[in-house]
Amino acid sequence: MKSGEKISFYADNREPDVEKMVCGIMNGNRQMLARAITLVESQNPDHEKKAHEILDRCLEKKSPSIRIGITGSPGAGKSTFIETLGLEIIKSGHRLAVLAIDPSSMQSKGSILGDKARMEKLAVNKHAYIRPSATSGYLGGTSPKTHETILLCEAAGYDVIIVETVGVGQSEIQVDSMTDFILLLMLPGSGDELQGIKRGIMEIADAIAVTKTDGEQTGLAAISKAECDAALRMLPPKYPFWKREVFLTSAITEKGIKEVWQNITEFFTVMHEKNLLQEKRENQLKNLFTAILEDMLKKKFYLDREVCSSLTTTEQLVVTGKISPFSGASSLINIFRHLDTLR
Amino acid sequence: MKSGEKISFYADNREPDVEKMVCGIMNGNRQMLARAITLVESQNPDHEKKAHEILDRCLEKKSPSIRIGITGSPGAGKSTFIETLGLEIIKSGHRLAVLAIDPSSMQSKGSILGDKARMEKLAVNKHAYIRPSATSGYLGGTSPKTHETILLCEAAGYDVIIVETVGVGQSEIQVDSMTDFILLLMLPGSGDELQGIKRGIMEIADAIAVTKTDGEQTGLAAISKAECDAALRMLPPKYPFWKREVFLTSAITEKGIKEVWQNITEFFTVMHEKNLLQEKRENQLKNLFTAILEDMLKKKFYLDREVCSSLTTTEQLVVTGKISPFSGASSLINIFRHLDTLR
Repeated sequence: MKSGEKISFYADNREPDVEKMVCGIMNGNRQMLARAITLVESQNPDHEKKAHEILDRCLEKKSPSIRIGITGSPGAGKSTFIETLGLEIIKSGHRLAVLAIDPSSMQSKGSILGDKARMEKLAVNKHAYIRPSATSGYLGGTSPKTHETILLCEAAGYDVIIVETVGVGQSEIQVDSMTDFILLLMLPGSGDELQGIKRGIMEIADAIAVTKTDGEQTGLAAISKAECDAALRMLPPKYPFWKREVFLTSAITEKGIKEVWQNITEFFTVMHEKNLLQEKRENQLKNLFTAILEDMLKKKFYLDREVCSSLTTTEQLVVTGKISPFSGASSLINIFRHLDTLR
Repeated sequence: MKSGEKISFYADNREPDVEKMVCGIMNGNRQMLARAITLVESQNPDHEKKAHEILDRCLEKKSPSIRIGITGSPGAGKSTFIETLGLEIIKSGHRLAVLAIDPSSMQSKGSILGDKARMEKLAVNKHAYIRPSATSGYLGGTSPKTHETILLCEAAGYDVIIVETVGVGQSEIQVDSMTDFILLLMLPGSGDELQGIKRGIMEIADAIAVTKTDGEQTGLAAISKAECDAALRMLPPKYPFWKREVFLTSAITEKGIKEVWQNITEFFTVMHEKNLLQEKRENQLKNLFTAILEDMLKKKFYLDREVCSSLTTTEQLVVTGKISPFSGASSLINIFRHLDTLR
C-alpha cells in the first residue's frame, strides 16, 4: 500500500476527476460546470493543473456561440436590462450564460448572491446559467479568468454568452478582446463630465441602448439618443460595414428589447457572411494565449526556488537605498533565466 | 572618426544628458522635469535606459513629501475641488504637484490641455505644477508610470503631491500603494447602486469630502454625510489610531476646504509621531520595486531574440488548435529560461 495511492483515492473522493468533469460539463451538468469554473478561478497550483486539463479538452470541442459584452455606468440598469434581453434570447431558442462581474469590496469579497437576486427570473430559468464573479482586487474589471469561464460555458452548450461589466475601467478593453459584440447601456441625461469616459467606451461599442426610457424620462431619452447619434457620427467606424445604432429601451415595458436582439443577430449574420467570425475567434484565442502566457511567466518567476531565496534580500537592498530598483530587478530576472548576473 | 561618436554627438544635441537633466530637475527647472516625465512614460528602450538613470539619481536624494490620493466618481467635482484645496495648500507655504489622470479616448490619446484648462488658477501659479497623463489603454486608472512621476516631482522640490484618479477602477488600489492619504470625494445624493463600489473605495479612504454642498444641495448633503458616517462606522478601521472623518465642502464658497487640509496635516503629524511614515515610504518603494520587476520581466521576455523567433509559430499552433495554450506558453517560457523544453 503506497501512500501516494491513498492520497489520490481521497482526492478522487473529494472531487471528480478531469474525465468526469469534462463529461459532466459537455452533458450540461450545472454542478460540474460550477465546479470547473471554481477550479479555473482558484489560485491553488493543483487546481490550476486540473483546470488547464479541463480547458484543453473544452477547447478541443470548439463550440460556436454569440458572445456579447454589456457595459454601462453604475445605475444604468444593467441587471434589469440583461434579464429582459436574456428572456428574449431564450424565447428565440438559445441557451444563455450570463457572467456577471460583481464589483465588490476588497475585504468582504463581495456578495455572491447579489446577481442572482438581481436577475430573479433568469436565475430560475432552466435555459439560463448565471455566474457572478467577485472581482476582489479587480474593482470594476472583469475577473482575470472570465475568458476561460466563457470557454467552459460554451462547452456546456450555452450558445449565447453575456459578459456584464461596470463601465469606466480597463474592463471594457478586456471584454472587447473576448467578446464579439459590445453593447453600451446609457442612462438618459448623464452628466457632461462623463463625456470623456463615454467617448473611450463608445469607440469600442457596436450598439448603444438608452435605458429606462419609460415614464417621465421619455423627453430626456430623446435628447440622449440624439447626443449618442451625434457622438457616434464623430467617431471612426469600428467596422466599415457596420452602422452603430442607438436604441431607446425600457426593461419595464420591454420597449426596444426585441430590436436590440435583432440588431445583435444581424451583426452576426453580416460577420458570418464576410467570413470574419472565424478571424475574430482566432484573435480572441490569441488574446487568451497572451494572457495565459504572461500570467504563467509571472507565476513561474515567483515560484522559482532561486528567485524566492534572493527576493527578500534584494527587496531589502532596494528599500534601504543600497541598490537601485532597476538593477535589483535585473539581477533577479537573470537568476530566473539562469544567466550570469554580469551578463 | 567613428560613426558611434557621431551618433552620440547628435543625440546630445537633441536632448540634454542625464547629468544636465538631474541638475535641472533638482533646481526646479520645469522644462527639465517635464522632459524627464516624458522619458519615464516613453516605451522606447533608449529613453527607458536614460529614465532609469535619472530615477536612480532622484531616488538617492530622498525628498520627503505629503502624498495625497484624491478619487471620486465622474461628476463629483474633482478638478474644482483640487484647485481650491491646492490654492489653500500653497497658501500654507508648500509647493504642489498635481498628477491628474486624464481618462481619455484610446484612439485620440486624450486632451493634454484638458486638465490645465480645468484648473486655471493652479495652472498659472508658480508654486504649482500640473501634469496631466493621458491614460490611453488604462481607462480610469493611473498611468503605469505615476509612481515614478511622483519621485521626479519630489526631487524637483514639490513637497505636496496630489494624485487624482477617476473612481471605480483598479486605480484606487494602485494609488493607495503609492500615496499616504486617500481622500474620497462624494457627490451629495449619489444612487444606491453605487454602494457596492463606494464600499470598496471607502475601505481605503482616510477621509471623505462631500462636494458641492452649496445652494440647493445642502439638505441632500447632510443626508449624504450621515450615510457616509454610518458606512464608515461599519467598516474596520484602516489605522487603529485614525478616525476617518466626513467633511461637507464647496469649491465655490470654500466651505470645509481648510478643514480638509487641516485633517490631512494632522494625519501626517500622527503618522510621524508614531514613526510610521518611514515604514509607509518603505512599503511604497517595495510596491514600486514589484511593479518595476514585473514590467521588466515582461519586457525582457518579449525582447528575447529566441522567444521572438518562436512566438509567432507557437501562437499559430495554439490558434489552430494543434497545441494547447498552456503547453505553448510553457515551452516559450522554457526558451526564455534557457531550459530544455522537456524539463
